[in-house]
Amino acid sequence: MDSRGDSDAGVAEAPIPPATVRRLPSYLRALHGLAERGEERTRSAALAELSGVSPAQLRKDLSFLGSFGTRGVGYDVSELAQYITATLGIETEHRVAIFGIGDLGHALANYPGYSRRGFEVVALFDAAPEIIGTEVAGIVVHGRGDVARVLAEERVTLAVIATPASVAQAATDEAVEAGIRGILSFAPVSLQVPEHVDVRTIDVSSELQILAFHLQAGQIPTRVPGATAAGDTDRV
Amino acid sequence: MDSRGDSDAGVAEAPIPPATVRRLPSYLRALHGLAERGEERTRSAALAELSGVSPAQLRKDLSFLGSFGTRGVGYDVSELAQYITATLGIETEHRVAIFGIGDLGHALANYPGYSRRGFEVVALFDAAPEIIGTEVAGIVVHGRGDVARVLAEERVTLAVIATPASVAQAATDEAVEAGIRGILSFAPVSLQVPEHVDVRTIDVSSELQILAFHLQAGQIPTRVPGATAAGDTDRV
Repeated sequence: MDSRGDSDAGVAEAPIPPATVRRLPSYLRALHGLAERGEERTRSAALAELSGVSPAQLRKDLSFLGSFGTRGVGYDVSELAQYITATLGIETEHRVAIFGIGDLGHALANYPGYSRRGFEVVALFDAAPEIIGTEVAGIVVHGRGDVARVLAEERVTLAVIATPASVAQAATDEAVEAGIRGILSFAPVSLQVPEHVDVRTIDVSSELQILAFHLQAGQIPTRVPGATAAGDTDRV
Repeated sequence: MDSRGDSDAGVAEAPIPPATVRRLPSYLRALHGLAERGEERTRSAALAELSGVSPAQLRKDLSFLGSFGTRGVGYDVSELAQYITATLGIETEHRVAIFGIGDLGHALANYPGYSRRGFEVVALFDAAPEIIGTEVAGIVVHGRGDVARVLAEERVTLAVIATPASVAQAATDEAVEAGIRGILSFAPVSLQVPEHVDVRTIDVSSELQILAFHLQAGQIPTRVPGATAAGDTDRV
């Protein structure tokens, strides 16, 4: 992350730093919001505030994607949104499977914002006989024995693990065996996966513990000047 | 984060870098797992693997907390867990309120792992008349008009926003007005809060977009050698 000081900002061919990749979804979300309000152009100050980063951070991040914006004129909202969409690889929708259809799986299956953001939930799996065969968000829940077949048929590329911690590794193994290379896990355990598979973990208690640390320390985490929403600036 | 190169690793009085704070919950989780299996001592290689980081990263992070471990002997599991717990400020349980008791709020209220990790959910709020007065996870759901009173009575210190995006800012404002300084939000919007309030955002679609970028790029994100679970090493 900080080993690339030798590259020139603004050269689009340079690899995009992971920290920049993590902020691109925020920029895209802000741009979609502007587009919905009918705004065709925006300036870095406005877009930065909506995204919770400083204008300098925004400009630096966008410089990794290429040349955008004109001083005094700003950014074309739809052009920039389209470019970030292409950079993230979500021009074609990714098809998502959810493992574990408890309260959390229900919430994730019913979340309304996916399609606008490049995703479609197309497959649901659970181990409980009383849940298999039921419909959630219009999708039939399949059992564990159907994982490989359904993932292939539905051309799933990303899996979300919403199972209890005790079976998260088993669900992950099934997804990986079926060829899934991107996994988002809500289970508070460290999942073991082969080198070619990418796992991101959302752990609610860990996030609360980080907040607790800041409460105790009586300090707001380090962030760039001008950031509006604290905390998420250094990780989103 | 990288502006503190002048401080000596190993000096406990130095401020703990935010990236280290973000990894402490993983170490604590791994230590609790070891303790449950009856293990009294661990080595950095084993603890690092359970936490999804490299042994060098683990040793460096722990050096910020003070002096731990003996070469060839390793760490005392309960002593290290206790020290991380104190560092995070979760020796006394934090009392948590959840705003928005839909599927996600239900899932969060019923999550079994809080108390072991320093939290207790003690208050639930929703705006829907048919939900107010019902019990979820043994806790009565209160209406919006009761927020200030219930937060004070229950001595709540952290709020979780699980409402629809459209009312997330209003719920946040109510929590902040009642004195809450730490907020964990699941709403895919950038929340505006005063300087003294710390917000962390969990945005499922953003996490999926980051996975999609890595899938497309055919690359695993930069990580330290020896890390086992990819992806979460540079953000947890």
